[in-house]
Amino acid sequence: MAEEVSNKQIIFKDYIHGFPKESDMILKTSTIKLKVPDGCSDAVLVKNLYLSCDPYMRSRMSKIDDNYVPIFTPSEPMSGDGVAKVVDSSHPDFERGELVTAITGWEEYTLIKSSESESETHFIRKIHHTNVPLSYNIGILGMPGMTAYTGFYEISKPQQGDTVFVSAASGAVGQLVGQFAKLSGCYVVGSAGTKDKVDLLKTKFGFNDAFNYREETDLDAALKRCFPQGIDIYFDNVGGEMLDAVLPNMRLNGRIATCGMISQYNLKPAEGVRNLLYIMAKQIRMQGFLVYHYRHLYPKLFDLVEPLLEQGRIAYVEDVAEGLESAPAALIGLFSGRNVGKQLVRVASD
Amino acid sequence: MAEEVSNKQIIFKDYIHGFPKESDMILKTSTIKLKVPDGCSDAVLVKNLYLSCDPYMRSRMSKIDDNYVPIFTPSEPMSGDGVAKVVDSSHPDFERGELVTAITGWEEYTLIKSSESESETHFIRKIHHTNVPLSYNIGILGMPGMTAYTGFYEISKPQQGDTVFVSAASGAVGQLVGQFAKLSGCYVVGSAGTKDKVDLLKTKFGFNDAFNYREETDLDAALKRCFPQGIDIYFDNVGGEMLDAVLPNMRLNGRIATCGMISQYNLKPAEGVRNLLYIMAKQIRMQGFLVYHYRHLYPKLFDLVEPLLEQGRIAYVEDVAEGLESAPAALIGLFSGRNVGKQLVRVASD
Repeated sequence: MAEEVSNKQIIFKDYIHGFPKESDMILKTSTIKLKVPDGCSDAVLVKNLYLSCDPYMRSRMSKIDDNYVPIFTPSEPMSGDGVAKVVDSSHPDFERGELVTAITGWEEYTLIKSSESESETHFIRKIHHTNVPLSYNIGILGMPGMTAYTGFYEISKPQQGDTVFVSAASGAVGQLVGQFAKLSGCYVVGSAGTKDKVDLLKTKFGFNDAFNYREETDLDAALKRCFPQGIDIYFDNVGGEMLDAVLPNMRLNGRIATCGMISQYNLKPAEGVRNLLYIMAKQIRMQGFLVYHYRHLYPKLFDLVEPLLEQGRIAYVEDVAEGLESAPAALIGLFSGRNVGKQLVRVASD
Repeated sequence: MAEEVSNKQIIFKDYIHGFPKESDMILKTSTIKLKVPDGCSDAVLVKNLYLSCDPYMRSRMSKIDDNYVPIFTPSEPMSGDGVAKVVDSSHPDFERGELVTAITGWEEYTLIKSSESESETHFIRKIHHTNVPLSYNIGILGMPGMTAYTGFYEISKPQQGDTVFVSAASGAVGQLVGQFAKLSGCYVVGSAGTKDKVDLLKTKFGFNDAFNYREETDLDAALKRCFPQGIDIYFDNVGGEMLDAVLPNMRLNGRIATCGMISQYNLKPAEGVRNLLYIMAKQIRMQGFLVYHYRHLYPKLFDLVEPLLEQGRIAYVEDVAEGLESAPAALIGLFSGRNVGKQLVRVASD
């Protein structure tokens, strides 16, 4: 008989409008047998170690036709990227004790069933990077790393000497874009929402300059101060008012990588952006991307980042909340900018 | 002694805000000697036959920092693309009697001086297409043709079977985009502002479908009716509210060619566009272009269009206002959609 243990879970209560609140998620304690059920083939039972809090998860909390990510199921656990350890497996590729990244539940233990969908096979991967903090596998070596790689190299097509602006620049993605830009010989400026984050950009991540958008009374003036010759590449994590201020400051043939619009996710309708005429007048290419369509580029990310990590030439700052109970507050903190760096939740240490 | 003749001119009064009015332009009669002045080398004196009225000219009427086209000079004649005949020349490449296209003044006779700027050498070209209406040289074989070619083939990258939406579809550019799309095996729908224009789209230009945007109470519903599976390519001539309605109707990997935003040129601030989140969610590429950066593609336009014209497989509808005096009203009519097809002014017949 398999051992039955308690399994704390963070349950998604119901679809929401506007800003998410902690009370939209409920802590519940159920039980689970630490064994893949009989007859459940190609399944893996994992113990969750780290969970990732990401802005895109907001989109999973509202029922919208034609959503770009699957929505959460009310009364079921929240889910997202996680680092986990295999407790039991009926899958030939995974065995007890192995470390994996997977789409896991926001709970202590998750039974990950196989799926016939081709893309689902990507949802669980063995961890091969063991000489870096485990959590990096859902950070710099995971989805945020891939997002920064894709948006900067594939979408923005940087040239040496380009001027690059990054919003939400100390976040999970922005901090990497800034460092990639420096490595590519670009001049890079970031915006963030506190003095400490601005300091971090300039000292830890090597941005040429940075500003606190909350303290600027005139974003256009701030951008003109930082980019007297204009901006070649804007890596847009926020949308809205900042995008509107950036557009007139773009240079001819500028590129805008539309990675996210965190300032807009909780607004309905979104803010209106008025300066789109510059898309024409400056021959701007504004291009969106969804990182899960670029999974084939993971080897290129690893080839770039692994030596940089080994040589200490790239940094990755994480903000780790302790305990599953802290997950709702950690997720909500993303939308007020409470996190400093990549937001994680540590569920267990091993 | 050279003959001195009267030279009617349309004078640009002063910089404007908002919608242009006829009274922003003044008819004046001056005189001109029909001879290139002594000591003025590489100059050409022309008699103007056709003048082109184009939406971009609105941008030349306001003093804006960092404008993408040169602004008009108050108290000087308006200017733009024209078809003209050489009356006198001190330029070795042009001689009396030759037909040219050039950036000419809005006047009966213009002295075109050479410029050291490389790009200026493109401002006067000999007309080689004599088996088509002369005016086509500033229409389908001129800037509007090049704009449709560049925006459709170079920016939108059409694939057979793509669904294409064109706004201002009966205009100088839109009518060609629709026909190019049909020739490329696309499904194409256009919007226009009168029933007659909508009929023209469906009968003369072969659009699969068309609608009158002024009669639709819900643009989103109109687009969903015409594109139940969504839009692959949006050729945007208007911006604003229509762009906002199009964004949620775009398909994954859709392309928006930002050609113009005529609905916005007279508004300050412009309307806010709220649905930009779809740029990310649908991986849309929205790209602006300025046709004068694509002049090197003229031979490709000619290769495409000349045989189509000869075989009667492409149509081009023009709206010709008679006499220089009618030019201000013709220009202003563009912004209320009074023109049907490419708006021209006939100054003289030869």
